[in-house]
Amino acid sequence: MTKLQTWVEVPSTSDFTIYNLPFGIFSTDGNSPKAGIAIGEQILDVAAVAHLGLLDVSATYFEQSTLNAFIALGKKTTNKLRLDVQQLLIDASSPLKDKPEVFVLQREATMHLPVQIGDYTDFYSSIEHATNVGKMFRDPKNALLPNWKHIPVGYHGRASSIVISGTPIHRPKGQVMPKDATTPIFRPSARLDFELEMGFIVGNNTDLGASIPVDKADDYIFGLVLFNDWSARDIQKWEYVPLGPFLGKNFASSISPWVVTVEALEPFKVKGPSQEPKVLPYLQYSGERNYDIHLEVGLMPEGSDEEIVSKSNFKYMYWNMAQQLTHHTVNGCNVNVGDVMASGTISGKDESSYGSMLEISWAGSKPVTLKDGTTRTFISDNDTVIMRGFAEKEGIRVGFGEVSGKILPAK
Amino acid sequence: MTKLQTWVEVPSTSDFTIYNLPFGIFSTDGNSPKAGIAIGEQILDVAAVAHLGLLDVSATYFEQSTLNAFIALGKKTTNKLRLDVQQLLIDASSPLKDKPEVFVLQREATMHLPVQIGDYTDFYSSIEHATNVGKMFRDPKNALLPNWKHIPVGYHGRASSIVISGTPIHRPKGQVMPKDATTPIFRPSARLDFELEMGFIVGNNTDLGASIPVDKADDYIFGLVLFNDWSARDIQKWEYVPLGPFLGKNFASSISPWVVTVEALEPFKVKGPSQEPKVLPYLQYSGERNYDIHLEVGLMPEGSDEEIVSKSNFKYMYWNMAQQLTHHTVNGCNVNVGDVMASGTISGKDESSYGSMLEISWAGSKPVTLKDGTTRTFISDNDTVIMRGFAEKEGIRVGFGEVSGKILPAK
Repeated sequence: MTKLQTWVEVPSTSDFTIYNLPFGIFSTDGNSPKAGIAIGEQILDVAAVAHLGLLDVSATYFEQSTLNAFIALGKKTTNKLRLDVQQLLIDASSPLKDKPEVFVLQREATMHLPVQIGDYTDFYSSIEHATNVGKMFRDPKNALLPNWKHIPVGYHGRASSIVISGTPIHRPKGQVMPKDATTPIFRPSARLDFELEMGFIVGNNTDLGASIPVDKADDYIFGLVLFNDWSARDIQKWEYVPLGPFLGKNFASSISPWVVTVEALEPFKVKGPSQEPKVLPYLQYSGERNYDIHLEVGLMPEGSDEEIVSKSNFKYMYWNMAQQLTHHTVNGCNVNVGDVMASGTISGKDESSYGSMLEISWAGSKPVTLKDGTTRTFISDNDTVIMRGFAEKEGIRVGFGEVSGKILPAK
Repeated sequence: MTKLQTWVEVPSTSDFTIYNLPFGIFSTDGNSPKAGIAIGEQILDVAAVAHLGLLDVSATYFEQSTLNAFIALGKKTTNKLRLDVQQLLIDASSPLKDKPEVFVLQREATMHLPVQIGDYTDFYSSIEHATNVGKMFRDPKNALLPNWKHIPVGYHGRASSIVISGTPIHRPKGQVMPKDATTPIFRPSARLDFELEMGFIVGNNTDLGASIPVDKADDYIFGLVLFNDWSARDIQKWEYVPLGPFLGKNFASSISPWVVTVEALEPFKVKGPSQEPKVLPYLQYSGERNYDIHLEVGLMPEGSDEEIVSKSNFKYMYWNMAQQLTHHTVNGCNVNVGDVMASGTISGKDESSYGSMLEISWAGSKPVTLKDGTTRTFISDNDTVIMRGFAEKEGIRVGFGEVSGKILPAK
């Protein structure tokens, strides 16, 4: 990769290098939310740069509380904007060098949802996760259901309850059927879990009736975020047959604030797992469509240090994003800018790479002992769950920052 | 009921009587969509009435392409507006009598989606439908799943593909597993079906973490529409275990254009079926929460007359809308103005009241012979499906008009 050097101070371990330049929505005290680009520990106020006449895109696209209108300009425009900003942050004679007012410190800003999410879909695309769940709850010898290797299985989730990193979440209450009971009871979930996922943000509208061919799918993916698909396993278990997860999932999902473009992730593309049996022609792809993104989950009890409970990687996905989007639209279902599609829990082969407490504690049978001496099978009140992700190659790092959420006691 | 008399000409069989006054979004040639109220064969241009200074609500709320901002004003305001309009259409000395320009003929207008739909949820609340499906596909002796009488089972659907009545829909293609086959194939759905449903439109926002008590649920329901949940049974069958229906449903759902308020439907409230075993306390309601709304489905092959294939009634619902909304939010899931929640297929006990071809043809085993001599087990290309609904009591009628959709061949 070509080495790039910015005049902005970027700490060596920063996710937000000159190679990254992710988009987000931020606000500072008393001001309306607007678009920013992360660089090092700062946010570039893109509207302010546009007002200086340094960009091809009007400031009005950045003076909005979501990125939807900007994304809808199309990749040709948004990619050029990002490269123009990159150049402004590289040039030794950049007009921004004497304009400190176009930068805001990240620690002094509040981040908001980057997009207005029209629809949210959650997939189930990690073979290790699907196999683990199948082993625990169905037949260990036939853990995968018959459709799993033919279809990137997915379901519709709730868009309204997707929240930005840092939003605290009350433990949900709901109906559960206790073991050996014959009637359900109503109580706070006793099996509250995280799911380590990544989500992509749709970058283009389609018409109802249109389908996205697998080799065109990348044109419809603007960028990626970290995604914590909070799950109440006990509620989910009682409700999900036959129509799928509902209240066990829709009380909240958390996303990271910075949308890392697929262009920034291009150098980290890798080959995906081989798909046997061969998938149907509409799902057959060529080239490298997986991404080598290191993922980790930290668990931080109130007043204790954070502890890493999982290290996984986005490259483990059996079904890639292009296949997911192609499958989603093959029946003519339309998609819109700002739609979010999440991967499903990203687990690897090794126990240390399992992406949910359900798997880590094997349905509660193997408690995890934390450094403070307490144990966990699922998430306790006042625990904070933090997910991080980054790609690194030849010393070049492109990262996502984090998505965190604290679980408050049930209301 | 108090008899009301309007000076507007309203045909005796009209759904849009002076008792109804439903809201919708319409446009006429070359003009932007705006809000209207249906009366007889006409549409009252509410913005135009507001501009005459005759209403408490500013015209800006009606000069929009959706009703969301108007609905968000709250029931106190929207109910008063509707009653004020009612009075203007009753008063013998109404200032509107010499203002023909505030009326538009329905047949000269184009109707649009009445609301921007944030999230769409589909329930499964007819015991007859759930029992029929259970008998066909699971165990005839234990047709209902264990959770069915405890939970108003529901799942998230796709909001983006909800279309207004009259929108033609291409037969979806997708993966299906043919009987006795071992690998799936890709083809146009051979089991395309309708589902006769009603949908309600949420009239109030809640915060994440908040729940709507069952006796307050009516405050969160603005009004109702007819809802056709198009379904591709063969696609659905292969995909839906374990995460629920996805591509078998999300290619399209159709709604009727006129939102009938719950206030207009108040006189038609009736007692619902008794719920045994007793439901959990948070789902226990008092009073009459079902609605006596006659429903019918017509099937019209290309070039033939329409034929009624089902006559059902909304009063058959086992779970009512208040219970659905309460259950949906009991875990803290937030709802927003414009969200749509559909009932699930509304079937009655009698075969003639089944709300889907799946049930009418008993999974394809009992073809229906139409007057033109052709037979149907599911929907054929170029068939139009029309659903209608109305309530009537003491000679007073409040109706929904219709939701129709024509199935075009697969693309």
